[in-house]
Amino acid sequence: MAGVTVGVDVGGTKIQSAALRAKKVAGAYRAATPQTGAADVATAIIESVQKALAEAGAAPTDLRAVGIGAPGQIDREAGTVASSPNLPGFQGVDPVDLGSLVSKGLAGVPVTLDNDVRVAILGEWRRGAGRPFKDVLGVWVGTGVGGGLVLDGVLREGHGAAGEIGHTIVKPGGRICSDGRRGHLEAYAGRGRMEARARSLVKRGHSTVLFEIMKKKGRTRVSSGVIAEALEREDPMTLTLIEDAVWALGVALASAQNLLDLEAIIIGGGLGDRLGTPFVARIAKEMEPNLFVPDRPPVMLTTEFGDLSGAVGAATLVGG
Amino acid sequence: MAGVTVGVDVGGTKIQSAALRAKKVAGAYRAATPQTGAADVATAIIESVQKALAEAGAAPTDLRAVGIGAPGQIDREAGTVASSPNLPGFQGVDPVDLGSLVSKGLAGVPVTLDNDVRVAILGEWRRGAGRPFKDVLGVWVGTGVGGGLVLDGVLREGHGAAGEIGHTIVKPGGRICSDGRRGHLEAYAGRGRMEARARSLVKRGHSTVLFEIMKKKGRTRVSSGVIAEALEREDPMTLTLIEDAVWALGVALASAQNLLDLEAIIIGGGLGDRLGTPFVARIAKEMEPNLFVPDRPPVMLTTEFGDLSGAVGAATLVGG
Repeated sequence: MAGVTVGVDVGGTKIQSAALRAKKVAGAYRAATPQTGAADVATAIIESVQKALAEAGAAPTDLRAVGIGAPGQIDREAGTVASSPNLPGFQGVDPVDLGSLVSKGLAGVPVTLDNDVRVAILGEWRRGAGRPFKDVLGVWVGTGVGGGLVLDGVLREGHGAAGEIGHTIVKPGGRICSDGRRGHLEAYAGRGRMEARARSLVKRGHSTVLFEIMKKKGRTRVSSGVIAEALEREDPMTLTLIEDAVWALGVALASAQNLLDLEAIIIGGGLGDRLGTPFVARIAKEMEPNLFVPDRPPVMLTTEFGDLSGAVGAATLVGG
Repeated sequence: MAGVTVGVDVGGTKIQSAALRAKKVAGAYRAATPQTGAADVATAIIESVQKALAEAGAAPTDLRAVGIGAPGQIDREAGTVASSPNLPGFQGVDPVDLGSLVSKGLAGVPVTLDNDVRVAILGEWRRGAGRPFKDVLGVWVGTGVGGGLVLDGVLREGHGAAGEIGHTIVKPGGRICSDGRRGHLEAYAGRGRMEARARSLVKRGHSTVLFEIMKKKGRTRVSSGVIAEALEREDPMTLTLIEDAVWALGVALASAQNLLDLEAIIIGGGLGDRLGTPFVARIAKEMEPNLFVPDRPPVMLTTEFGDLSGAVGAATLVGG
């Protein structure tokens, strides 16, 4: 059975691979990201590719190529990663040659790299929820809020920074964003900034079950799962944080819609996937009063592949 | 001398024509818009084309084609105009066949219509300030705030409503916009909304020289010229109104830049052209702290053709 490509989504905590045959997911594999340096990360990626291949019932010689989505600064030509704050061994400004490290461990198959959020949005657009559309905005709500913009069937590059919907100004002078500026969408809807706000509210005497759930789950961060559980328990602080996030997404996405006249918006990312359809429906409702052409709103979608979006998209980098 | 095209920019108060030969402006003509109905407007357009031709030293038989930019709902296929609130005779929902009326008066030359703001931005992008760029946002600050978006060398259409930067939300719950929604860019930077705010402030006891200048100039509206003179006289209310406009433009354009990673932004329109370079420089400065990639801001430009942008752009519709 020839012709398998594998896509790998490399994150700070997990490495997710998917093996694609005839453009369909035939196998997948997930492992923890080693916290011990670049060489170990490369080895873990290689193992993950081999396991995904095996899951797909494919032999190592069936592997045609590997695509990798990674956070940080990616040089696609060189196949390198640099300045990736959450990826152990890749934090420095000196580029690490991840592409050739992985290629060497896999009998020299071609390896192509790209940015993790771009790749995930490519996956959903090419193979998932975005398939029917030519004009799509992907909004990845996770630790931060990333984005990717497909217009007339082409993923917009700009000079490399197009699609940064997370840095739309929703409230001038508002909450501080991860980039130090104020009032950005990410300051309200990014999981990282939500956690920071929750910690600051607790310091000021407010109560929440968020950190109790976090400890119970053995986590050190307020993950999407922690937020989802707090929501189920109707924790007032979490309800308000999500209300703020929905409000901010409604403002930013309505402005983007008014400027771009899109066909569809896909909400993905860790938090987006976890909160799913009800979250997307609330965002759609929040956008409504702000739309310039209210009788033709964009189709609002969840992802089809969930946390496999990135791995599937990475595979499409190499024809998967 | 063969091969002249004429572009016509039809507004509620003036009809501006430009004759182009070898893609250069060879003649221009400007007349008041008749307030007496569609047939008279068509006749005035025909005369204006003839005068522009004469200005260019061309014979009537040199005319190859006419392009028209008009406000309202344009059906490009049919060559009709409807729902144009400021154009006498074209206010109704029933489309008026402007294209064929004008063609008949000009020996049957082909006539092509498009939306006035889109056409003006096309003019600046194809022949004016935007020539060197592939990714350009045009922001037309006039009675309202219109826009047009060129990405990868193509004017974005969306489903017909792309480019509406004026309806970017800059202050949720803020001032009321011309479309009845709150906090849009146009509510702060559109001349119409500025005038409404000035009138409401005067009612509440504030003073301004705006309406005195308006009367002295024999105008019934606070035109761009009125605003410019009030600014020169350092009228405090006008200074604040322009400060608010600059602030709102800074917010909206920074968000657009963060999303689209543009090469250049052109500020045009009646007020934009009138206030010119100092206004554009202030907007650029206001954007700066909000840019996600501050070391690569978009090139900020005034128009090259000023109030001829629309006529030149209309000529480019027919190859001028």
